[in-house]
Amino acid sequence: MMAVLGENRYGKAEVRVVRIDRGRRPHAISDFNVSISLSGDMEEVHLSGANDQVLPTDTQKNTVYALAQKLGGVEPEVFALALARHFVEGRPAITRAQVQVDSYGWSPVGPHSLVRSGGEVRTVTVVHDEQSGSWVLGGLRELTLLNTTGSEFWGFAKDSYTTLAETTDRMLATSVEARWRFRGADCDWAAAHERARQALIQAFVDTHSYSLQQSLFAMGSRVLAEAPEVCEVRLALPNKHHFLVDLSPFGLPNDQEVYLAADRPYGLIEGQVLAEDAPEAGPVWS
Amino acid sequence: MMAVLGENRYGKAEVRVVRIDRGRRPHAISDFNVSISLSGDMEEVHLSGANDQVLPTDTQKNTVYALAQKLGGVEPEVFALALARHFVEGRPAITRAQVQVDSYGWSPVGPHSLVRSGGEVRTVTVVHDEQSGSWVLGGLRELTLLNTTGSEFWGFAKDSYTTLAETTDRMLATSVEARWRFRGADCDWAAAHERARQALIQAFVDTHSYSLQQSLFAMGSRVLAEAPEVCEVRLALPNKHHFLVDLSPFGLPNDQEVYLAADRPYGLIEGQVLAEDAPEAGPVWS
Amino acid sequence: MMAVLGENRYGKAEVRVVRIDRGRRPHAISDFNVSISLSGDMEEVHLSGANDQVLPTDTQKNTVYALAQKLGGVEPEVFALALARHFVEGRPAITRAQVQVDSYGWSPVGPHSLVRSGGEVRTVTVVHDEQSGSWVLGGLRELTLLNTTGSEFWGFAKDSYTTLAETTDRMLATSVEARWRFRGADCDWAAAHERARQALIQAFVDTHSYSLQQSLFAMGSRVLAEAPEVCEVRLALPNKHHFLVDLSPFGLPNDQEVYLAADRPYGLIEGQVLAEDAPEAGPVWS
Amino acid sequence: MMAVLGENRYGKAEVRVVRIDRGRRPHAISDFNVSISLSGDMEEVHLSGANDQVLPTDTQKNTVYALAQKLGGVEPEVFALALARHFVEGRPAITRAQVQVDSYGWSPVGPHSLVRSGGEVRTVTVVHDEQSGSWVLGGLRELTLLNTTGSEFWGFAKDSYTTLAETTDRMLATSVEARWRFRGADCDWAAAHERARQALIQAFVDTHSYSLQQSLFAMGSRVLAEAPEVCEVRLALPNKHHFLVDLSPFGLPNDQEVYLAADRPYGLIEGQVLAEDAPEAGPVWS
Repeated sequence: MMAVLGENRYGKAEVRVVRIDRGRRPHAISDFNVSISLSGDMEEVHLSGANDQVLPTDTQKNTVYALAQKLGGVEPEVFALALARHFVEGRPAITRAQVQVDSYGWSPVGPHSLVRSGGEVRTVTVVHDEQSGSWVLGGLRELTLLNTTGSEFWGFAKDSYTTLAETTDRMLATSVEARWRFRGADCDWAAAHERARQALIQAFVDTHSYSLQQSLFAMGSRVLAEAPEVCEVRLALPNKHHFLVDLSPFGLPNDQEVYLAADRPYGLIEGQVLAEDAPEAGPVWS
Repeated sequence: MMAVLGENRYGKAEVRVVRIDRGRRPHAISDFNVSISLSGDMEEVHLSGANDQVLPTDTQKNTVYALAQKLGGVEPEVFALALARHFVEGRPAITRAQVQVDSYGWSPVGPHSLVRSGGEVRTVTVVHDEQSGSWVLGGLRELTLLNTTGSEFWGFAKDSYTTLAETTDRMLATSVEARWRFRGADCDWAAAHERARQALIQAFVDTHSYSLQQSLFAMGSRVLAEAPEVCEVRLALPNKHHFLVDLSPFGLPNDQEVYLAADRPYGLIEGQVLAEDAPEAGPVWS
Repeated sequence: MMAVLGENRYGKAEVRVVRIDRGRRPHAISDFNVSISLSGDMEEVHLSGANDQVLPTDTQKNTVYALAQKLGGVEPEVFALALARHFVEGRPAITRAQVQVDSYGWSPVGPHSLVRSGGEVRTVTVVHDEQSGSWVLGGLRELTLLNTTGSEFWGFAKDSYTTLAETTDRMLATSVEARWRFRGADCDWAAAHERARQALIQAFVDTHSYSLQQSLFAMGSRVLAEAPEVCEVRLALPNKHHFLVDLSPFGLPNDQEVYLAADRPYGLIEGQVLAEDAPEAGPVWS
Repeated sequence: MMAVLGENRYGKAEVRVVRIDRGRRPHAISDFNVSISLSGDMEEVHLSGANDQVLPTDTQKNTVYALAQKLGGVEPEVFALALARHFVEGRPAITRAQVQVDSYGWSPVGPHSLVRSGGEVRTVTVVHDEQSGSWVLGGLRELTLLNTTGSEFWGFAKDSYTTLAETTDRMLATSVEARWRFRGADCDWAAAHERARQALIQAFVDTHSYSLQQSLFAMGSRVLAEAPEVCEVRLALPNKHHFLVDLSPFGLPNDQEVYLAADRPYGLIEGQVLAEDAPEAGPVWS
């Protein structure tokens, strides 16, 4: 039985680059974690170890630092696009480049001093393909939201393993992971990110929710409504369960005051919301 | 602009179930982390919050525990298959179930005592689809391998950002993440897992490597050769860089003795190796 | 050779309790991770397994939830004090209780909606001792600060393994872990925390630093100056190295613009700053 | 109010050094994570930033690599002792050095190939003090043990918050963190480590346990009995709770077969076991 090579890619992952823009007051900072995956005509290296077409991952790392200097203080989408195009346009053997950027936020606390903004991470995925061109996903993760009320869960399907009680008032919390596909590769990226982010928060806040699925669809739809540059949203919403603690053994009431925050297991709701006229997605999600 | 619902799924993630087989001497243990994703006719819950078709994720959790009791001490592939089929066969609205199981190893140290085997995790992914039936992936992750010699890297492509020196003798280390697709849904799962695992190790050990891509293809091919139940292997191999430390400023030699183990960035090599006659993959990888 | 029992303690760790204050607009939330350690007359349980004096850790967990209901939405210092005293005052065999509380911040985004504030954690350690009474430490961790300039490092000691170049302008970043000892067990805890936190930030920002030790002492001193309720500060400051990338192989300048953010190894500076009149510390740091 | 400097120390943390012994067949590997803390006459750098007495942490890192070359493939205790003495003996301003080494295990799978042994880590702490000389702690962490039976918990103290049922047969699991103090600074370190490790496992296996405290004391005592080089053992044993799942709502028995493995909260039992003739501990535990 012959073994044959299928899809493959390679690159440098998690290049941590920090760029200071000293021309601004207060000093501004770009704090990125960059991962690169290249694919193309790579059969030979797999079969015989011949590296003629293999641009070292060390070179890819160098390129991240060099482009950080050349591009200046740009949005992460711009950085990822330039990097992906560099590899595809510079090397015939490479037909597709994927670049992922995690961007960490900092806030000024002095003319040359900053404080890290915390858990939330802005994410970018770019694919540049020799044939189909450039594709851009914006996104974020670790945006943790909680509604203390305004959430119900009842009328659900039941089988012989169902013990869950119905409720018309529960706490609902989730750590949002969202990615959104842009229609094009040119945009006011910072403004679009901020509008998409606010849309996610606002839809979560505004939705009187009968299920986390309903919140998910509302959040995706709101992004499409507020950010017309976006044609598709994918969300993964873990249901971070908060269970009301039974205090009756201690003769105490618990009128939705004291909760146990559980780690595992957790519900996980995943879904895709598309603009009616969304074009085909191309290779960017794979 | 109308928003429309695309692909979606939901379920309970990371249900931690431990089952003791007290009938065996020494006592045996199954230690699983189970995640479930169901999909099917779920439009209504997203649009209006109507939960008629939504089997609660709490019920899914209960089902894990109930099946653990009913099935007894089975291999994780058997457990995942039974669980996935249960949901699809039991509920018309659910047309596809994906079940992932991480299985943690324990070794006996007494008639009723065990010690955790450590970092390596055995993985299983099952998809059961109403139309196309059952699909099974075996796998493992966090199997960390290192060759102290027998690895070269030279003759690679160079551009203006290339500074890496060529080498005919380097240390090569990786933390193997492998998944392999079985041809069918019935098999001696434990034996197949052990043969696939040994094939990965043996191929890494035996290959005089000119690139990690070459080792990857050799590892995938070896699994196909040793485990004919398997028709496809996918590997993700981080290149855990070990850099020789320059001790010359201290007047000391370093004849490939002392290395710095780096965290980030790291190379990441991903690839798919297929048997020539591998059938189409179906939905199991998505 | 006889073995004898030395110091010992036991308790429940990481009880995750969330309390909603629905009487406030917007709803307020207390999100605590509580760990308890009890010590006292525990010889017998170690030697023979007799549990007469052992209040189960499960009971300790229940007590966390019950007190959360009884105490209402209090500061974490108040919660920890009440919990520690409860165990010592309620059980003769228990002579000392240590309670640690991590408190996670949330900000309102609607009348009943909140968003997690991110990485920084407020910390409390309380010891209540039958003999010496109550002791309180406030604190925080994961407050990440960075100065883009205003930091030097030169004139340091050198030996035969020193290769580091001196610099009169470097980037300085650290993730502050601070704990401060209060003089008493009664205080406006929220106000004191905020003043101590601001003092840490402001001293880091204001100090033209010749070494991270100097910044540490300035930070500790500033807390003492701004928060007279505090008599001692302990700081652990990892030096999160940012290395200027050498871009000269690519013909590019790098005038303090592009940095590599390193993970490991890191410098670690630890120190204690005391008010001149600080009383003895008692058991709270152990 | 004057602020005064109290205890302080500084150093390089988490230096990752890997050393290959190519003279042995199969090749052997030392895989260490080394952290250094120096203290002494460091007042000036805190008060004014004058670095005359500050040996850079970068130099400390270099020293790790240089000593790894000079010392060859030694046990981690030997490495830590040499490193600690180097700093104290080489620099008058430094009066005490603490060195911690985590050592990761590898097993041969070929003449120049190895596989990582998994979760368990061997630990060493050395303090060398100008006045009191050298002190050595051996240890380990992440040794996870489980007894499927032979554990009871009843007769415990009860108060108004106690709801836990008594049991004469429960599952008992813990992830051992142990450190043991050697009487001297010269020893067959590898043999002593192996005897201490086996003693911990064997005592856990052999003890019919009425409480985890009882197991702790048995484990510490056994180390003292089997390793006479050791005069003190400190253990931290998290009680990794496994709860029997109630399957009665589904009409199923659960005769101690199916358990839920919980993450948080967990019990935490900490204790110290001393040889009757143990000398004073000196500065090594601080």
